[in-house]
Amino acid sequence: MKPVRTILVQGFRGAGAACGIKKAGKADLALVVSETPCVSDVVFTRNRIFAAPVAWGKALRNRSALRGVIVNSGNANACTGKEGLSAVRTTSEAACAALGLPRDSLLVSSTGVIGVPLPAGKIVAALPRLCASLSAGGIARAGDAILTTDAWPKRGIRKVKVRGKTVTLGGIAKGAGMIAPNMGTMLAYVFTDAALRPADLRKAFRGAVDLSFNRIVVDGDTSTNDTAAVFANGACGLPPLSGKDLSAFSEALRSLLLDLALMIVRDGEGATKVVRVAVTGAASARDAEKGARAVATSPLVKTAVFGADPNWGRVVAAVGRAGIRVDPSRVELTFAGEKVLRRGLRIDRAAERRAAPKIRKDAYGIEVDLGLGKGSHHLYFSDLNHDYIRINAGYRT
Amino acid sequence: MKPVRTILVQGFRGAGAACGIKKAGKADLALVVSETPCVSDVVFTRNRIFAAPVAWGKALRNRSALRGVIVNSGNANACTGKEGLSAVRTTSEAACAALGLPRDSLLVSSTGVIGVPLPAGKIVAALPRLCASLSAGGIARAGDAILTTDAWPKRGIRKVKVRGKTVTLGGIAKGAGMIAPNMGTMLAYVFTDAALRPADLRKAFRGAVDLSFNRIVVDGDTSTNDTAAVFANGACGLPPLSGKDLSAFSEALRSLLLDLALMIVRDGEGATKVVRVAVTGAASARDAEKGARAVATSPLVKTAVFGADPNWGRVVAAVGRAGIRVDPSRVELTFAGEKVLRRGLRIDRAAERRAAPKIRKDAYGIEVDLGLGKGSHHLYFSDLNHDYIRINAGYRT
Repeated sequence: MKPVRTILVQGFRGAGAACGIKKAGKADLALVVSETPCVSDVVFTRNRIFAAPVAWGKALRNRSALRGVIVNSGNANACTGKEGLSAVRTTSEAACAALGLPRDSLLVSSTGVIGVPLPAGKIVAALPRLCASLSAGGIARAGDAILTTDAWPKRGIRKVKVRGKTVTLGGIAKGAGMIAPNMGTMLAYVFTDAALRPADLRKAFRGAVDLSFNRIVVDGDTSTNDTAAVFANGACGLPPLSGKDLSAFSEALRSLLLDLALMIVRDGEGATKVVRVAVTGAASARDAEKGARAVATSPLVKTAVFGADPNWGRVVAAVGRAGIRVDPSRVELTFAGEKVLRRGLRIDRAAERRAAPKIRKDAYGIEVDLGLGKGSHHLYFSDLNHDYIRINAGYRT
Repeated sequence: MKPVRTILVQGFRGAGAACGIKKAGKADLALVVSETPCVSDVVFTRNRIFAAPVAWGKALRNRSALRGVIVNSGNANACTGKEGLSAVRTTSEAACAALGLPRDSLLVSSTGVIGVPLPAGKIVAALPRLCASLSAGGIARAGDAILTTDAWPKRGIRKVKVRGKTVTLGGIAKGAGMIAPNMGTMLAYVFTDAALRPADLRKAFRGAVDLSFNRIVVDGDTSTNDTAAVFANGACGLPPLSGKDLSAFSEALRSLLLDLALMIVRDGEGATKVVRVAVTGAASARDAEKGARAVATSPLVKTAVFGADPNWGRVVAAVGRAGIRVDPSRVELTFAGEKVLRRGLRIDRAAERRAAPKIRKDAYGIEVDLGLGKGSHHLYFSDLNHDYIRINAGYRT
């Protein structure tokens, strides 16, 4: 699951630059643009406190034929009021003009510190340089410029054979923790040269997001800026995908987004492990989700995962307080394939001893079977450890 | 808010002993008993996975005239099935017999490791010694014997003047974190020589619990064993309290429970700070509670509190994801009396600088005014830091 080095998608060009929002000349401005208008879809954070570019983007999403995205890092443009919206407008208008595109052709995103006015002037001043450096190989550089506390870039690529041609999907993402120190956080963009009908792309994208970005938990916090978007420009020359071609595309999209999402968990602030928790046998799917979320966000479970302790008592206690139907005498629990609890009773110390070495690995599963019904849900989460504290307790400076 | 040294309440005797559940001869068995039957009330954990003594106690609560409580520490008797219930029965019968009391005269509690069979034989064997050492001054020793990961004992006392006589309330509690390493956790017992009608005691106790133990958050986890109980034996010689005497008693009970609750937060695993978060101006009281709880359980807020960072962005983001009505342009925020956010906008860096030294203290307040309605709620919570990780990531041994 290493990030790929290059991302080439027909008809898309990208660039990254340093415009001076971040200190020390670090890349903080990213642009990816298609030669032709795209079919696109965008999903945003569900946090009621959302940033100016999210407010702007929600209106844009249903109105414009988008050509790509411009992103600044280092400043979230959140809790910035009317001035914040004005900064988005300035960025959007200047970028579209610099590219010779109609207005409102670009999605605008921001990530970084909350509550500080966005210096749109710095972005505008850097646009000529940024546009001049656009290249087919520049999507990866754009991916570098959107990072904040990330330890490494998140990139992925998928290729799907369709009637003798190759459809490519390239993705870039950022995020280390659902919300980084004082940062507004998770961003992901997928660019594809496939042609798709808007409803088909929307369905494929929302389904893929639900099984990837909506299934990861670092600390349970949700940022003010989360945005995921897909852009399809049809440059591969095929007509809109349908039938089993559409299914193959959807599967590739799902796989790509899951890879990017797991990269974010693995880079979760200080994370040493990624655990897949599955709750099955719940009275309903909603119950299963609430149970899985209670486990994935429990500080006690997360510290036990860090300590490689098969501490099923904490998992059971988290499920018990999730506000869902639970019958203590039916709960069964498996750590890394080793059943440790059967019908609510600890099996024996030997089972825990067998599980112990397996949960020292950097990825494994915890399964909770409630034995009540058919509801099931799974999530991926990271551990809670000293690095998380160190990273997040530091002063903002 | 230092724990008192001695607890004397007319007509109550207490004792603590080491029966061998904990290692190294540490005190692990506590008994407090009244000379006469008590009016009492007991509240239990709302976790659906509850321990055997909780299941047993729920039935007992409405059935028996209780005389006191026997508690073991070191073993939670949770996830122990039918054998667990049988161990409670054995403990209860043997203790009542040893004291010459009718059966079912004692509440039974356990706290400690989950999923390990309770060695009731060790308790039974220690009973003669325990009963022989009962004394008026022994309530504090009973308080010592219920501790697990606590750094220090939690004790409190209140005296109320009623018609020339003195009514005494003495309390002992345990808990450091809502749930300790693999432990089932918060226990609190209040003993009073006041006489009260059952309905009055119940109302006063439930009201006091709601404003104390239900207002504290260490890590958001809820244990399988939480129990709080009050025993009133009427030994002070006054008739049942009513009118303003009852009000004075209720106020003393509230004050005592809040003290004990804050001792638990302050001893919260590794806690360096206790913060009171108040959400006001919410659309409803329920919204206010959900908002306060989202702030109090947010790992990002809790690490910022540890780092003494007036990081209002994290507080606002937590409220925004709480699933409540929020209008970003109306939110106002105060750190330790310093307003840092007005109408959703950061005031200036100077306000944060003024707040910075105040939030280095070990206790302060965060107020969030949503500006929407009259709903309000407050909670006390501790910070999240390296000691929490160290304590909770350790192997169970």
